[in-house]
Amino acid sequence: MRPSRRAPDELRPVTLERGVVKYAEGSCLVKFGDTHVLVTATLEERLPPWLKGQGRGWVTAEYGMLPRATLERTRREASAGKQSGRTVEIQRLIGRSLRTIVDLEALGERQITVDCDVIQADGGTRTASITGAWVALADCINWMKSRNMIKAKVLRDNVAAISCGIYQGKPVLDLDYAEDSEAETDANFVMTGDGRIIEVQGTAEREPFTQDEFLALIALAQKGIARLVDLQKLAVA
Amino acid sequence: MRPSRRAPDELRPVTLERGVVKYAEGSCLVKFGDTHVLVTATLEERLPPWLKGQGRGWVTAEYGMLPRATLERTRREASAGKQSGRTVEIQRLIGRSLRTIVDLEALGERQITVDCDVIQADGGTRTASITGAWVALADCINWMKSRNMIKAKVLRDNVAAISCGIYQGKPVLDLDYAEDSEAETDANFVMTGDGRIIEVQGTAEREPFTQDEFLALIALAQKGIARLVDLQKLAVA
Amino acid sequence: MRPSRRAPDELRPVTLERGVVKYAEGSCLVKFGDTHVLVTATLEERLPPWLKGQGRGWVTAEYGMLPRATLERTRREASAGKQSGRTVEIQRLIGRSLRTIVDLEALGERQITVDCDVIQADGGTRTASITGAWVALADCINWMKSRNMIKAKVLRDNVAAISCGIYQGKPVLDLDYAEDSEAETDANFVMTGDGRIIEVQGTAEREPFTQDEFLALIALAQKGIARLVDLQKLAVA
Amino acid sequence: MRPSRRAPDELRPVTLERGVVKYAEGSCLVKFGDTHVLVTATLEERLPPWLKGQGRGWVTAEYGMLPRATLERTRREASAGKQSGRTVEIQRLIGRSLRTIVDLEALGERQITVDCDVIQADGGTRTASITGAWVALADCINWMKSRNMIKAKVLRDNVAAISCGIYQGKPVLDLDYAEDSEAETDANFVMTGDGRIIEVQGTAEREPFTQDEFLALIALAQKGIARLVDLQKLAVA
Amino acid sequence: MRPSRRAPDELRPVTLERGVVKYAEGSCLVKFGDTHVLVTATLEERLPPWLKGQGRGWVTAEYGMLPRATLERTRREASAGKQSGRTVEIQRLIGRSLRTIVDLEALGERQITVDCDVIQADGGTRTASITGAWVALADCINWMKSRNMIKAKVLRDNVAAISCGIYQGKPVLDLDYAEDSEAETDANFVMTGDGRIIEVQGTAEREPFTQDEFLALIALAQKGIARLVDLQKLAVA
Amino acid sequence: MRPSRRAPDELRPVTLERGVVKYAEGSCLVKFGDTHVLVTATLEERLPPWLKGQGRGWVTAEYGMLPRATLERTRREASAGKQSGRTVEIQRLIGRSLRTIVDLEALGERQITVDCDVIQADGGTRTASITGAWVALADCINWMKSRNMIKAKVLRDNVAAISCGIYQGKPVLDLDYAEDSEAETDANFVMTGDGRIIEVQGTAEREPFTQDEFLALIALAQKGIARLVDLQKLAVA
Repeated sequence: MRPSRRAPDELRPVTLERGVVKYAEGSCLVKFGDTHVLVTATLEERLPPWLKGQGRGWVTAEYGMLPRATLERTRREASAGKQSGRTVEIQRLIGRSLRTIVDLEALGERQITVDCDVIQADGGTRTASITGAWVALADCINWMKSRNMIKAKVLRDNVAAISCGIYQGKPVLDLDYAEDSEAETDANFVMTGDGRIIEVQGTAEREPFTQDEFLALIALAQKGIARLVDLQKLAVA
Repeated sequence: MRPSRRAPDELRPVTLERGVVKYAEGSCLVKFGDTHVLVTATLEERLPPWLKGQGRGWVTAEYGMLPRATLERTRREASAGKQSGRTVEIQRLIGRSLRTIVDLEALGERQITVDCDVIQADGGTRTASITGAWVALADCINWMKSRNMIKAKVLRDNVAAISCGIYQGKPVLDLDYAEDSEAETDANFVMTGDGRIIEVQGTAEREPFTQDEFLALIALAQKGIARLVDLQKLAVA
Repeated sequence: MRPSRRAPDELRPVTLERGVVKYAEGSCLVKFGDTHVLVTATLEERLPPWLKGQGRGWVTAEYGMLPRATLERTRREASAGKQSGRTVEIQRLIGRSLRTIVDLEALGERQITVDCDVIQADGGTRTASITGAWVALADCINWMKSRNMIKAKVLRDNVAAISCGIYQGKPVLDLDYAEDSEAETDANFVMTGDGRIIEVQGTAEREPFTQDEFLALIALAQKGIARLVDLQKLAVA
Repeated sequence: MRPSRRAPDELRPVTLERGVVKYAEGSCLVKFGDTHVLVTATLEERLPPWLKGQGRGWVTAEYGMLPRATLERTRREASAGKQSGRTVEIQRLIGRSLRTIVDLEALGERQITVDCDVIQADGGTRTASITGAWVALADCINWMKSRNMIKAKVLRDNVAAISCGIYQGKPVLDLDYAEDSEAETDANFVMTGDGRIIEVQGTAEREPFTQDEFLALIALAQKGIARLVDLQKLAVA
Repeated sequence: MRPSRRAPDELRPVTLERGVVKYAEGSCLVKFGDTHVLVTATLEERLPPWLKGQGRGWVTAEYGMLPRATLERTRREASAGKQSGRTVEIQRLIGRSLRTIVDLEALGERQITVDCDVIQADGGTRTASITGAWVALADCINWMKSRNMIKAKVLRDNVAAISCGIYQGKPVLDLDYAEDSEAETDANFVMTGDGRIIEVQGTAEREPFTQDEFLALIALAQKGIARLVDLQKLAVA
Repeated sequence: MRPSRRAPDELRPVTLERGVVKYAEGSCLVKFGDTHVLVTATLEERLPPWLKGQGRGWVTAEYGMLPRATLERTRREASAGKQSGRTVEIQRLIGRSLRTIVDLEALGERQITVDCDVIQADGGTRTASITGAWVALADCINWMKSRNMIKAKVLRDNVAAISCGIYQGKPVLDLDYAEDSEAETDANFVMTGDGRIIEVQGTAEREPFTQDEFLALIALAQKGIARLVDLQKLAVA
């Protein structure tokens, strides 16, 4: 029995609320149960120096967590003077995931920065961030289209993410904090709308896992991500 | 005529929503019109080293702004590696303001950290922060009371803050960004529930101002802060 | 009775010694009693990037304190690796105060950097800094005039600053350290030669103060600043 | 045809040379073809503060790259003032991988720090680091055993790592730089001696990949890691 | 002919003014011509952690330069966020030089920190700093003696420093900036009152120098330092 | 008797192995006994901003030590976030020493960066670095010559370095760590192939030393450096 009484292949209640920050070209408040992430997409007519003049744009991401998003207060990274290794890992993952489904040539010589700020954290902040980021990004692209800034299709597909893990010996979908802290194995999957894999990160937290266990996790992930992609399509419809 | 069509002594619509972050001992989402600040109060059973063993507690504050809270994206301070001078000034002001109305002996050897994170910025983020911080702080104190952690009265009074300024030659209350960026003079007032002054910061943005002009600003502030204190009392009732 | 036996409206002995650093375009060693600040004004034919090509110049300030300017040694900020919040606040205040009375268009596309370094600190270092900075700035402007670098009038007025406070229940002018550390309320005023206010910063160190108390402090400040402006005029005559 | 003319499932020549730094409790110069990493294991009778008094030890890792390990010189991280996101990711991966096969209780309240410094980089520095780290760690444990510092078995298994990828449409094992920079998909696998998975990181560099493609990579990895584990056993025999 | 018209073995006018900062246990404003350094000695009843409980004290030094001590303004190190390599080198040299003549056991478990801040720089700031530091240190020791804090002799000898160089082919003593920037060779000598060498740093700025040239510099240095030691003795008499 | 049983004027076994890093334009693994330093020389067609357009190039150096090069592990500077004062001193010395014998005009508008990374440290890492750096630099220059990038002679002479010291009252050459940590006096000499001095750094670690003692050290250094220069010539022949 999962602490949340969910079925092994059951997501937490997911909501994707658009237009939550009035200045941003795209924004989305994504909730995976008690995990709440505020995502904004910012369009800027400038590029990092190493990308200039190559006829294509860039999508990058930054991630942060409000100090009291967590059970106990976490030190503010701005005050600590640097981003933790965990933060850097997560924001690199988000940026990489989004770029895989963006046609950077079609975007033109511009940069979109996606900011994912965790308001409340109950496990799965990186997967919620990626899932919400796609919505904010889609809105930003639509904002550009409505101003005739782009002609070709920029978004080639959806992208969403979910975690799976082995909890008390059983594969389960979308771990919350109570499960995550107890799980033997924890894996994050980023996939496209057509079910292909963009990123897999599987870690044995306690015991190494077998190939069969890993295949069970992939199967769960595909199911969950298909559902998230449906919700994304509904949200931007 | 003010850009927002408000009367000179009219506040923006103010709301104080409590209990918005489930882990925090106190929290408040404060809105002054389009300025939205998420405030949490965290209780910790530890003190900064220089305060230990003196029989009294501490209240401190941190302030941050999400990168796209502003019209144009602002660089993330965690990624820049340091807090700006403006951030440091504001968080020192918030902490100082709160401490003035807290009985630190009655609090006991504990620290309350108030985090003010700006979700959307349309002028007056520091005054909204202080006003909302009092609510989060009050809830944190109530949380302690309900657990018999404190006996004596900890909060001696309310504290709220508002900005005033001279806009197109006329004193006005609660400047939004459109006014703030054009005002000749800008002053922030922090006052107690009984109308006394905790902090005054007046700055001539363009032209120095006279003592009479300054008195007009104080009068406006007192009116506005009385209204904010009423709203605080309503919120925690 | 004040610890220094001064009358409530009496300044400490103030001296403004010019030309104390041979390389600087302007310099001033300002003393407010035992508070000694060395101020230099540096002219540079370059501007911060965000100001280039707008037909006007810039005046900025930096503030520092020698480690043993204080009763107990303070850690050197260069060795700590960053400027404290207090330092940042003070240098922003000095720069802002000077810019209010400088015609930046008349200055032309150049930057003047005013460095205020506290040799000995006995309260009021920021007000002494501003008062001395005007003298160093005036000398720097004269240096430019004598080389025909500027045509129009650059300095529109004097600027000086003083602190006031409520000490043992009574308003007093120009607090020294002994008073400052005991005062209930502490306020810094920056004013022009014609008595208008550039900046007011009033802080209740212990008890909030009333509007009437604050008016008494303004009155003291106006008296003190009028005297400081006379001394500035004498110094540069 | 691979640039190196290797068969799809062929490792580069691998050597594991022990005892290369005279002070270290364990050390190994590991070469995967032209990728050379110097690994040392340092035993210290102290623990990070958060681990003290819990009756178990810790294994951690740090990773670095000499500036001219790469085709073009990379900026020295010590001079840049911080470790890159990539460095942090890699050293966290190495530490995590090693800890999975170490019995931290049997180690006792001590810390082993594994330093992996890349002398020459031709792709696969993280997998070479992990593979060599196991050898240095094993020597460090043997050093302790020979001094009767530990009684129980500390190393529960071997651990080794290899990269696989899809290069010109075909799954290949142990990518060198020429392949890595062209590969459509790149995955790193960390496995135990008994073939279970400790960590999987698969990234679509260009095109998302299918589950079948991913399974082909796992199969290659298992073959490669079995060979690396044989070499480790030979090295420490 | 030297730019200053001094004889080859002639020092600049040297003054050593004591008691210039009222809070410091010892202080000295040292002038070597237009090079002016403010030195303070601070006594603290605490030690760096690695020195505690060994029955001896420590003497350390910090060095800084006011931004406009130089012909062109130098960036403030506190604002740059770190001390330059040159600063670190100089302050290590000053500390090492002073420790050589201090009986650290006789000092007891205390630390004296010597701060050398350059007010005006015209060459030779490190040698002036060391020479003035001895005076400030001697006054600090006398302050302790007068309070019966020490019994045995703490200062075993004088220490002073001077630069020499080869300027236009000729060895000269005590280079000012005009000479220093043109000299072929530049050497700094730190010696005791009895003429022994504590530190020699000779650098070929342009052409390597011969052993004979170096001997000529040592001879000049010995003459100059003997004179500086006489002035130190006079100053503290 | 020296701990290593060497004669007072006897170097440790010295080897200079070229071509040890395949990407670098020049490289050398230098060993002075158990002190091992890996040196690479990197040619880049760019210059620091302050040198551009002056018709000459630049040679600079960076120095680092692998964490376990030492008896006890030293904290990694990249992780500490800054280079130590010692590191900065050493890399400045190496760069300065090399520039003295390089014709920067003949080099053209290019920069050569010499990286010296200590693999194992047993005293004398800076002198080994300089000695090996000349070899790496010479190879880099030869690499350029073979591509017709330079016409005139770039290297005007050899440069090598050695330490000497007074150990148990006797002058000895090339101190290893056992001697260095016990020596009364420690001096580093950098000299050219023709026996002239580039840099002298002599430090009394315990007792100040006399001029005669210093002359004895110079004599030893000249003998040792002549031998090192012979080995350099052999290595590049």
